[in-house]
Amino acid sequence: MNTPSVPDLPDDINTRHQCRMARKKALMDDKIQQAQRETGVLLIHTGNGKGKSSSAFGMVMRALGHGMQVGVVQFIKGAMSTGEEIFLRRFPEEVQFHAMGEGYTWETQNRERDIEKAAAAWQQARQFLRDPAIGLVVLDELNIALKYHYLNVQDIIADLDARPEMQHVVVTGRGALPELIEIADTVTEMQVIKHAFKEGIVAQAGVEW
Amino acid sequence: MNTPSVPDLPDDINTRHQCRMARKKALMDDKIQQAQRETGVLLIHTGNGKGKSSSAFGMVMRALGHGMQVGVVQFIKGAMSTGEEIFLRRFPEEVQFHAMGEGYTWETQNRERDIEKAAAAWQQARQFLRDPAIGLVVLDELNIALKYHYLNVQDIIADLDARPEMQHVVVTGRGALPELIEIADTVTEMQVIKHAFKEGIVAQAGVEW
Repeated sequence: MNTPSVPDLPDDINTRHQCRMARKKALMDDKIQQAQRETGVLLIHTGNGKGKSSSAFGMVMRALGHGMQVGVVQFIKGAMSTGEEIFLRRFPEEVQFHAMGEGYTWETQNRERDIEKAAAAWQQARQFLRDPAIGLVVLDELNIALKYHYLNVQDIIADLDARPEMQHVVVTGRGALPELIEIADTVTEMQVIKHAFKEGIVAQAGVEW
Repeated sequence: MNTPSVPDLPDDINTRHQCRMARKKALMDDKIQQAQRETGVLLIHTGNGKGKSSSAFGMVMRALGHGMQVGVVQFIKGAMSTGEEIFLRRFPEEVQFHAMGEGYTWETQNRERDIEKAAAAWQQARQFLRDPAIGLVVLDELNIALKYHYLNVQDIIADLDARPEMQHVVVTGRGALPELIEIADTVTEMQVIKHAFKEGIVAQAGVEW
């Protein structure tokens, strides 16, 4: 292939396209017009698919681009030295990073120790949630800690509600509790359509970890 | 709240938990054991929910943490100076960034100009896809360009197939074509459960852009 070949479409298709795009623009402008409330938002990334944590880390990148301070607490994956962690530790002035726990819960097999670690991680999270200088707080895999009742969801909600008005929070992990979904502004479910593991491909640096 | 209150559970619950976790660990170990093929993977992030692009940028962060070189082509959002772009331009040695187009297609309303821009963007993408020094290529919003037939999907597949064996590629955008899903290793659909726009909240720096 030399240049990407583009289908040669008659003029009326171009015209129809133009009309459709104009309608779409009007709709989008209208929606943006209606949405005028400036406030910190609470986002949840849940579901069994990939991208829950990496999407939160993409938001960290966005926030850093806008000159925000960021606080990250990892509730479960702590033991793994992930690519994100290595990278974020290059920006100690902009990102406060706390990785708690000792790997996935099914690695530890010790419920009481997991509960202690989750409680300690939440103490750190609360410090971020009380600091108006921090524009974005990432609570990575918090949903897992809640699902296993390592933390009390009503206590967590009280701290989230009391946070500075303009602070954004993103919570990740499969199995988000209904109580948390109820108070969230934006909830996205990542669904698996296809997964490389099932095709016999090992977890890859830069993709899975 | 002083310390997060944790439910006081009887010992047999702790034991059951331990057994469940042990079974889970065995299952996971088994899956990881089976997945041994080391290769570059093709990922697609599609669906109407949030997190498709930000998840790709989270992967960029991971890849940078592992010392990889990264190439990014933005097919649609080019005109917006997003947080990611501002941030990634701080790493010219590690990230090659090309933002094409002039904003969302419904902003331009000019199909022929969109097609030209998409073709130019693909030329850049092909350079990345032929360079074994680049460990991760992000083709942001490529699905949109394909959905509108700005590019020919078979030409794109040929270039993806011919890429270096260990190179990872992530393609984002709603409405992924079945032809592309067919050849992908991992496909995730981001679904909207709740969206802040609908609650009357304006798009926020560090969250939407």
